[in-house]
Amino acid sequence: MRKIFTVGVIGAGRIGKIHIKNLFLKIPDINLKMVADINITDELRQWLLENRIPKLTSDAFDIIDDPEIDVVVICSSTDTHTKFIQEAARANKHVFCEKPIDTDMKRIKETLLIVKETGIKLMIGFNRRFDRNFMRCYESVASGQIGDPQIVKITSRDPTPPPIAYIKVSGGIFLDMTIHDWDMARFQAGSEIEEVFATGAVLIDPEIGKAGDIDTAVAVLKFKNGALGIIDNTRRAVYGYDQRVEVFGSKGCVVADNEATNTVRIYTSEYTSIDKIPHFFMDRYVESYLTELKYFFQCLRDNIEPKPNGEDGLQNVLVALAAQKSYEKNRPVRISEVEKY
Amino acid sequence: MRKIFTVGVIGAGRIGKIHIKNLFLKIPDINLKMVADINITDELRQWLLENRIPKLTSDAFDIIDDPEIDVVVICSSTDTHTKFIQEAARANKHVFCEKPIDTDMKRIKETLLIVKETGIKLMIGFNRRFDRNFMRCYESVASGQIGDPQIVKITSRDPTPPPIAYIKVSGGIFLDMTIHDWDMARFQAGSEIEEVFATGAVLIDPEIGKAGDIDTAVAVLKFKNGALGIIDNTRRAVYGYDQRVEVFGSKGCVVADNEATNTVRIYTSEYTSIDKIPHFFMDRYVESYLTELKYFFQCLRDNIEPKPNGEDGLQNVLVALAAQKSYEKNRPVRISEVEKY
Amino acid sequence: MRKIFTVGVIGAGRIGKIHIKNLFLKIPDINLKMVADINITDELRQWLLENRIPKLTSDAFDIIDDPEIDVVVICSSTDTHTKFIQEAARANKHVFCEKPIDTDMKRIKETLLIVKETGIKLMIGFNRRFDRNFMRCYESVASGQIGDPQIVKITSRDPTPPPIAYIKVSGGIFLDMTIHDWDMARFQAGSEIEEVFATGAVLIDPEIGKAGDIDTAVAVLKFKNGALGIIDNTRRAVYGYDQRVEVFGSKGCVVADNEATNTVRIYTSEYTSIDKIPHFFMDRYVESYLTELKYFFQCLRDNIEPKPNGEDGLQNVLVALAAQKSYEKNRPVRISEVEKY
Amino acid sequence: MRKIFTVGVIGAGRIGKIHIKNLFLKIPDINLKMVADINITDELRQWLLENRIPKLTSDAFDIIDDPEIDVVVICSSTDTHTKFIQEAARANKHVFCEKPIDTDMKRIKETLLIVKETGIKLMIGFNRRFDRNFMRCYESVASGQIGDPQIVKITSRDPTPPPIAYIKVSGGIFLDMTIHDWDMARFQAGSEIEEVFATGAVLIDPEIGKAGDIDTAVAVLKFKNGALGIIDNTRRAVYGYDQRVEVFGSKGCVVADNEATNTVRIYTSEYTSIDKIPHFFMDRYVESYLTELKYFFQCLRDNIEPKPNGEDGLQNVLVALAAQKSYEKNRPVRISEVEKY
Repeated sequence: MRKIFTVGVIGAGRIGKIHIKNLFLKIPDINLKMVADINITDELRQWLLENRIPKLTSDAFDIIDDPEIDVVVICSSTDTHTKFIQEAARANKHVFCEKPIDTDMKRIKETLLIVKETGIKLMIGFNRRFDRNFMRCYESVASGQIGDPQIVKITSRDPTPPPIAYIKVSGGIFLDMTIHDWDMARFQAGSEIEEVFATGAVLIDPEIGKAGDIDTAVAVLKFKNGALGIIDNTRRAVYGYDQRVEVFGSKGCVVADNEATNTVRIYTSEYTSIDKIPHFFMDRYVESYLTELKYFFQCLRDNIEPKPNGEDGLQNVLVALAAQKSYEKNRPVRISEVEKY
Repeated sequence: MRKIFTVGVIGAGRIGKIHIKNLFLKIPDINLKMVADINITDELRQWLLENRIPKLTSDAFDIIDDPEIDVVVICSSTDTHTKFIQEAARANKHVFCEKPIDTDMKRIKETLLIVKETGIKLMIGFNRRFDRNFMRCYESVASGQIGDPQIVKITSRDPTPPPIAYIKVSGGIFLDMTIHDWDMARFQAGSEIEEVFATGAVLIDPEIGKAGDIDTAVAVLKFKNGALGIIDNTRRAVYGYDQRVEVFGSKGCVVADNEATNTVRIYTSEYTSIDKIPHFFMDRYVESYLTELKYFFQCLRDNIEPKPNGEDGLQNVLVALAAQKSYEKNRPVRISEVEKY
Repeated sequence: MRKIFTVGVIGAGRIGKIHIKNLFLKIPDINLKMVADINITDELRQWLLENRIPKLTSDAFDIIDDPEIDVVVICSSTDTHTKFIQEAARANKHVFCEKPIDTDMKRIKETLLIVKETGIKLMIGFNRRFDRNFMRCYESVASGQIGDPQIVKITSRDPTPPPIAYIKVSGGIFLDMTIHDWDMARFQAGSEIEEVFATGAVLIDPEIGKAGDIDTAVAVLKFKNGALGIIDNTRRAVYGYDQRVEVFGSKGCVVADNEATNTVRIYTSEYTSIDKIPHFFMDRYVESYLTELKYFFQCLRDNIEPKPNGEDGLQNVLVALAAQKSYEKNRPVRISEVEKY
Repeated sequence: MRKIFTVGVIGAGRIGKIHIKNLFLKIPDINLKMVADINITDELRQWLLENRIPKLTSDAFDIIDDPEIDVVVICSSTDTHTKFIQEAARANKHVFCEKPIDTDMKRIKETLLIVKETGIKLMIGFNRRFDRNFMRCYESVASGQIGDPQIVKITSRDPTPPPIAYIKVSGGIFLDMTIHDWDMARFQAGSEIEEVFATGAVLIDPEIGKAGDIDTAVAVLKFKNGALGIIDNTRRAVYGYDQRVEVFGSKGCVVADNEATNTVRIYTSEYTSIDKIPHFFMDRYVESYLTELKYFFQCLRDNIEPKPNGEDGLQNVLVALAAQKSYEKNRPVRISEVEKY
């Protein structure tokens, strides 16, 4: 008889709702018992009702303190992540936490220590690893089909910038947006990053510059295994959500292109055209959110350490901090320079 | 306040299960009240339990006679379709019925008459119309972007033949397999078929020939609007489920290619390769089954005649019968030749 | 020491000029001695001068009677082909003759007899066999990679109809345009055609209908090896010269798509577009004309029978005649029905 | 009456032969009068004979001093370029010179001064600008279709490293190989480079490292117009010659992919495959060499300054020197730092 995991979700915002629906409808042997959100609106109440989601609370500790609940899924704001991870760990519950784990190295390290001591499993929601294309790319690399990775190339462009208010509290592009690419680069290269050179510019919206951030960025990475990496980011690709990964190796190259909206080509006397690529992450990555959660519960079931885990969360933040410093100093920065927080 | 439709499903086989899951999990404002299957196995009971499906019965009339039920979804064997449509219509329930409506013209006509008299809505499950690629193709044609359709070209190849036992009762390739393509051709051309020339061969399995059928077929169509059509079918494409549509017109051409399994390309010193196309209809068309049901309920809600309807079901069978005759006589056959059943 | 072939070209029209330039500039060990054209214009004289082509004559027999000339390339009008082949053969010269060999079966057979008796080599200019894409397709089929061919599918669409004056003397679409596709189908299938069903319509220009021809055609083929074939033709594809070949077999499928004009994709907020395909045969097949001539001279050098040869020329005309009859009678026609001319 | 340019070619090595053939066979109104090579081998003599090339000399000054010759094409070794440009300019002849113009800034500046004083036209052979794909990319950018360029991304990978002996005298990867990419970046961005960060590694062959060079490199560029650039290079892509360009802008993105060897796709039960990309520059760029020379002569004819000119040659060397310094110091280097030679 398979164990039924009892689950609570903290945070029912945009990402929280994706996880709630997946947990409720698409993952077998799950009992979604409770959802907590600090801000219970009528809209949220209605949404839960329509989706037949059981119990709603405004107090996350109703979940953490519930002895029936085995697993906590944390989708609340970043500044609450480490607190909830720590409390859930102490309550001996497994944790799936949205990225990033935190932006403060001290809190992250403290949290990982508690995770280690309690022996719970912690997975961080770097969902792009579970995109079918990037997974396939990884499989090819990991199987040795393209030999030793030598160049990892990531293009990651958002369709539209977030509101300036969000930019101001985001921690900056390297921590907010590129964080996914640091993770993807480490994942594909199969190696930690040793040094980063990052630079950028304000090319899209001067308001982003006034908020102390940049909107266009490129970075060069050196990995411990000798490979090099390049990343380019922009906050506004008018043609859609451009998400590509390429790994070049000693025996070949694997290229994961954008998903197409459909396979139709239209030929006229004026042009040949295809439809635009998916607009944003809800379109492109919808499947990956489900795949990552299924994988997480499979790890729990098989008693396997899930990946990306807390250490991955920590490394990604380290690289972001190094990138920020590199941008500010206009020179390459070794990860070891920022590690000693 | 939106109306909640109460639904019963007759038949819980392969296709029935797809519809049941979609009805239960993915379509809002639906109350799936009952499932009927003539053959209640432990496996079925278990499956319904796992999917939390309410009530199971072995008697379809528990559904038809239930005054609470507004809509009947018929997924039982073909020979039962017209009976259940008629009974449901008389009980004033709307009907979604799997293809084909029947293989007997007399019964089909009789049924459509009752549908007309009772004023219920009837939709036939030619799901491929709702494949995102073929829909996009249709939109392009219907919008006039490629002008008047002049050549409709359909490639439709299964990955593996069905069991010989199935072949024997299937009604032949033109009624069993090409039926989808007659529908697609009529849909894309926006016109009825006037004449068909069909031919074929046994190239894959001599047992199919012994069963009185062919396994490879090609057909040429003439549409009432003057367009021409070509279709090719095979029961075994070893590389996967090959499903393509192309419409050539006076102002351009629209081509809908196969879905890719992913977007990854692997380059090595030996080859450049991409992964195989989706294996079969459960992979390729999974989304279309949901889209068609959503559309059906939207039609009920908006009081619009759904398409493909009973008349479409009838026309597709007519073309199949004409094709069969064409193959047997080795000459083109006009639809009017077979219409007078 | 390699033999230098001395060559004369009869006919300096559109195709003639392609061959003349290739012979003069791009094929080593060739001495292009003389060009004959019945209609010596100033423009032609100028063109030859600019391209430094040696001697021009209005009398083809200056070439045929020249004892120094080893090889005659015939690009004159179709009605002169058999006469020149016969005379050149009798003068013991090898012949490369443009397609079609003739439209009259009696003259073709007579000519092939003389070719056989004199032992000269005769190649017919079905240049599409030498298109790099269709050659690659053929190699895949011939190597057995896709198993036994079961369906051969050809799309062959011109960008614009020829002048009505040309249509009137062209022999009809099946002899003028589809002739290339009969040849391609036989080439790819590796088998002769046994039966053809052809039909068509006037959808583009009523003047073509008044001239006694059709402008849109589809055909179904049965090959001696059991394979089936389908061809679609139109005189006007507004988006360019659409030339595709596909061979489906027991172990796979090989698809040769159109050449692209370039590899550029442009993504904007409105559309994703690629440039139009090459406009016509001078763009698409330019390379194939050179490849076929090089191959022809290599055959002469190696004393190998070139392909497509006179027998191929004859078979292609037979299929065209059968197709014409099929269209007129609206029934399939076996090649044996038209063979006995 | 169009002027016939009389041309001499200095240097008949690999690239020289490409230009000689193009000049002799494919460009109208050209009289190729003489070829000079310091090393007259039997093989060269034979090659010129086969290609019917007129006069051969071992002394370049036979060309420079010939009053009939209007244009000198310089394909000799890099260290002789400036000398021959200067002498040709003084003899009032136009010059097409292979890249790079030189590796010494002093000599380059001196030479450009003489070019300016004499008023001759000088074009440098950065042929990739004339690749049909990269030209199309440029046209899209230059037309404003994708708005202001913000990120220029170049992938440029050779299939195999040159001999170590060559590496030793090559000036290093940034001057020898990336020189093409500096030019392409400047060309596509429509702006000069202001700062470069370059790094790299020895990942392919330790002998390259022993020779004081690297075999894998990445670079980040800042352009004067604010755009950013990224380049990745490797000396060995086992799957072929990987040459791609992408320009991302405020209104869209244009991507120029590799040329395909053919358009054929092969589908089997095991794999879907396409043929490998062209192996090296003789395959990929053959057409561009002809296009650039045609363009050069058209500029002479129209009395237009050709591009890329001497200033482009100079800028590309400057960026290479800055990149080399950046690599050595592991920090970004402004072009102004190396300009003052």
